[in-house]
Amino acid sequence: MRRLGVIMAGGSGERFWPLSRKSRPKQLLRLTAGGQTMLGEAVDRARAVCGSENVWIAASPHLRAPISAALEGFPSHDILAEPHKRNTAGCLVWVAANLLAREPDARANWSMAVVTADHRIVPTEGFARTARAALETVEREGGLATIGIPPTRPETGFGYIEVGPEVSETEGIAVHAVERFREKPSLEDARAYVESGRFLWNSGMFFWTLDGFMTELETADPNLAGAIPPIAEALAGQDEIEASRLFEALPSISIDYALMERARRVFVARAEFQWDDLGSWDALDRSFPRDESGNVAVGDTVLVDTRDCVVYSANPQVVTAVVGMEDVVVVVTDDAVLVCPKSRSQEVRRVVEELGVRDPSKV
Amino acid sequence: MRRLGVIMAGGSGERFWPLSRKSRPKQLLRLTAGGQTMLGEAVDRARAVCGSENVWIAASPHLRAPISAALEGFPSHDILAEPHKRNTAGCLVWVAANLLAREPDARANWSMAVVTADHRIVPTEGFARTARAALETVEREGGLATIGIPPTRPETGFGYIEVGPEVSETEGIAVHAVERFREKPSLEDARAYVESGRFLWNSGMFFWTLDGFMTELETADPNLAGAIPPIAEALAGQDEIEASRLFEALPSISIDYALMERARRVFVARAEFQWDDLGSWDALDRSFPRDESGNVAVGDTVLVDTRDCVVYSANPQVVTAVVGMEDVVVVVTDDAVLVCPKSRSQEVRRVVEELGVRDPSKV
Repeated sequence: MRRLGVIMAGGSGERFWPLSRKSRPKQLLRLTAGGQTMLGEAVDRARAVCGSENVWIAASPHLRAPISAALEGFPSHDILAEPHKRNTAGCLVWVAANLLAREPDARANWSMAVVTADHRIVPTEGFARTARAALETVEREGGLATIGIPPTRPETGFGYIEVGPEVSETEGIAVHAVERFREKPSLEDARAYVESGRFLWNSGMFFWTLDGFMTELETADPNLAGAIPPIAEALAGQDEIEASRLFEALPSISIDYALMERARRVFVARAEFQWDDLGSWDALDRSFPRDESGNVAVGDTVLVDTRDCVVYSANPQVVTAVVGMEDVVVVVTDDAVLVCPKSRSQEVRRVVEELGVRDPSKV
Repeated sequence: MRRLGVIMAGGSGERFWPLSRKSRPKQLLRLTAGGQTMLGEAVDRARAVCGSENVWIAASPHLRAPISAALEGFPSHDILAEPHKRNTAGCLVWVAANLLAREPDARANWSMAVVTADHRIVPTEGFARTARAALETVEREGGLATIGIPPTRPETGFGYIEVGPEVSETEGIAVHAVERFREKPSLEDARAYVESGRFLWNSGMFFWTLDGFMTELETADPNLAGAIPPIAEALAGQDEIEASRLFEALPSISIDYALMERARRVFVARAEFQWDDLGSWDALDRSFPRDESGNVAVGDTVLVDTRDCVVYSANPQVVTAVVGMEDVVVVVTDDAVLVCPKSRSQEVRRVVEELGVRDPSKV
């Protein structure tokens, strides 16, 4: 079975303003000590699972050029531009149609690993083992698989997966049947989930054979499933206008809602790696080494008597000096500066909202 | 008697880094709501006292060009470049020699108002009345005069003047004999000074006739006084190299130490204006209007849930966003950013020190 790595790179990442912008979403930022973009790291991970020739990136058309610029040497025809925004279900229908257009027999002999680009994952080796266990399960058993992250806190911002019986173990990775998906819970429920030991965080990564995906989708959402062959046909015939028109008619719906929560056979591989969603600027003190005062300092900075701060300067022409501060985030780019307490770094969205009205060039 | 306004514009103003630099000291900054540079405001004040044709600025040679650029239309030959750094006594010897070179009879018929450029003074009218009272006193009585500021707190960073008997009152301005100058006091002494009601802050402004200045200096520091005629002669003969050589031989000493504290006849006019030394960034919440949350915001800024902050953006290409902060200073220039608590804005010097070693272009 041939394996295709698919990176969904559609996110916007307002929470990393001013570094993130419409044309430079979170995936294109360098938010870890490795110095690579998040997307570059995701490509490396996908290649570790599927081989270096078999990785596609799905994103909005306006991101094609920035992605090409960020990933030197990445084949441009493997950056799939979704002609309309149709959420993750639409994205994966578009990817399936593209695969069928390029490989007419793909349904019989391709499987897919659909991975995210906006999480920090280490080590790659543990990720690759986990992903292989998920792929081998669906290649052997059919159905769909995901990766579940052992929860470390009663987080209310993630979805949870209730695990059923263990199905197999491969290379030390336990694969279970999924009992049920749970939406973002209340704090009370989240605490109960974590205590029970029967719940994992939903990583938003998916594994299936093309046949398994289409078969399950035909039952879960026949409308979506039915769009794949005609879009593939239009793409194969180079009729991109027709493909775009067919795609535009699809509903905008998440793959969790359209497929995963309704599918009959779903597996979950237990992650054997560290996973961090890097949700906002304060998270950088987990993805970069701290100095002896607990600071993360990136770029040209002078910190005087400053503790537990995140100071990120992306502008080499600017020196950023912080004196006597504690627990704050300072971000400097070519055209914007942000200062806020670490604990409020999610509220950067309020700045983005205001600038959206006042000065859209800064969003 | 003709009157010459002299603005000593030699200060450096490290405490306003990153806006202030070696080539852009505090006097060239716009630190008040009027939108003028501090020096521009000082020129207006000096002109209100001495007339618009009779104002000179004394500064280091490297500041001539920035001063000319900041003061459109100011006659360049009235910007006196001191060829060496010789403190305030040297500066005023240089000014006296220049006046004698241009006006050989100046000793008989010129008086001088020597004023500072790095303080906020309002209203100009009150300043002009105070300065006139000081000038009229020395023009009538001879000797030297200064302006004393009624102290509002036991400040240990300023010198104090102990006042003696009242000599005159002109236009509502009381002029007293100076009993004694006091160096920067301990907090205990400063408290006693303020309580006694007999002390004023030393404003660093001086008033004398050229004859009164030279006569007092001949007694207080014959070496300095003796340098004036030969420097004037060299300047009158366009021999700037000789003038510079003579000037270089002078000691580097303050006018307070060389002259004021030793002079026999010194008067002090009681200031009828508000005076603020704007010592560091936190002072801007006194020189600019605050918004309803107590913030001073200059330039392109977005403040979200932020209180009592000073946010100063001097770079029109950059938007500065501050979220959820209190009592901090944020300054943004073309090549530097500063973040510090208001209460520690004096410590900016520590950044300047570090950059002096690491990246002198930023100092």
